[in-house]
Amino acid sequence: MPDFVRQIPEGDNRERNVCRDCGHVAYENPKIVVGSVVAHEGRVLLCRRAIEPRRDYWTLPAGYMELGETLADGAIREAQEEAEADIALDGVLAMYSISRIGQVQVIFRARFANPAAPAFAAGPESLEVGLFAWDVIPWDRIAFPTVRWALDAWRANTDGALGAPAGNPPEDPRGASRPAGV
Amino acid sequence: MPDFVRQIPEGDNRERNVCRDCGHVAYENPKIVVGSVVAHEGRVLLCRRAIEPRRDYWTLPAGYMELGETLADGAIREAQEEAEADIALDGVLAMYSISRIGQVQVIFRARFANPAAPAFAAGPESLEVGLFAWDVIPWDRIAFPTVRWALDAWRANTDGALGAPAGNPPEDPRGASRPAGV
Repeated sequence: MPDFVRQIPEGDNRERNVCRDCGHVAYENPKIVVGSVVAHEGRVLLCRRAIEPRRDYWTLPAGYMELGETLADGAIREAQEEAEADIALDGVLAMYSISRIGQVQVIFRARFANPAAPAFAAGPESLEVGLFAWDVIPWDRIAFPTVRWALDAWRANTDGALGAPAGNPPEDPRGASRPAGV
Repeated sequence: MPDFVRQIPEGDNRERNVCRDCGHVAYENPKIVVGSVVAHEGRVLLCRRAIEPRRDYWTLPAGYMELGETLADGAIREAQEEAEADIALDGVLAMYSISRIGQVQVIFRARFANPAAPAFAAGPESLEVGLFAWDVIPWDRIAFPTVRWALDAWRANTDGALGAPAGNPPEDPRGASRPAGV
């Protein structure tokens, strides 16, 4: 492990991890998760997680945005990696701040790139992938609160033009709650 | 400097900086810039930069989101730090991907928290702060392309309900262009 000390670098106004040996400042900033609600004929695509945290629970195809990508690139890549699905994006459905863990989530509304032949399969980080009608979504086995929030946002905007993105729900405006079991 | 080597960690699919000594993986992900177009009686708040890059050029109050913040927190803090302005946010005006430099920018539309007494001043990272009518904005002295993009987005949505956020303009959908002089 590099030998970091907490220090306020010159010209800054808060403590950062600074290397004792060379002065290198390791800034830690919030990370961006990009994902999508992929819908087909009223059903939504969910993935059962093969990895911790929340292995075995259901989530949207989503993950950390990578360097060199746009937001859209990242959402399309994650659907490919986690659900082996080629998707097309409609637009931004929701944006969430999860201040407790330093995360921003940008969730798109999407459909299969070829709706005439929707294809998907479990990628390496999924145990199972499926299309779920609203009433059979496994609500008691959802991985993260934001998955529920995004599904609710989709339910309110299943098609047509997208307006202002949904944000955190009133009961958790700062994404500060610690969800049960996580 | 920690002794990093480029390696694909177990369970990953791309090269990361991995410490030769301890195996610590230093993930590098895109960073989030939050900012706002603060308007008052048809004029917009701009800051002349006191720091590089683009010292002496005009920008919006904006900067890197910090851990523990929401997007809104960050935009409000940046207006306070760079323009000593207390602002209130209307909603998300625009979201830009700047893939060339691994950045996502989230720009809010905002106003002064107390419009009856709009107050602002140059913070430590600004040389000068001012309210500009559209026709006198110093267009030839704008710091970054996204400042222009966001001002255009504001011009198209100065008040009323905000719809879908503006995105990258058609001529630079991936934020890949290298702007002149930067």
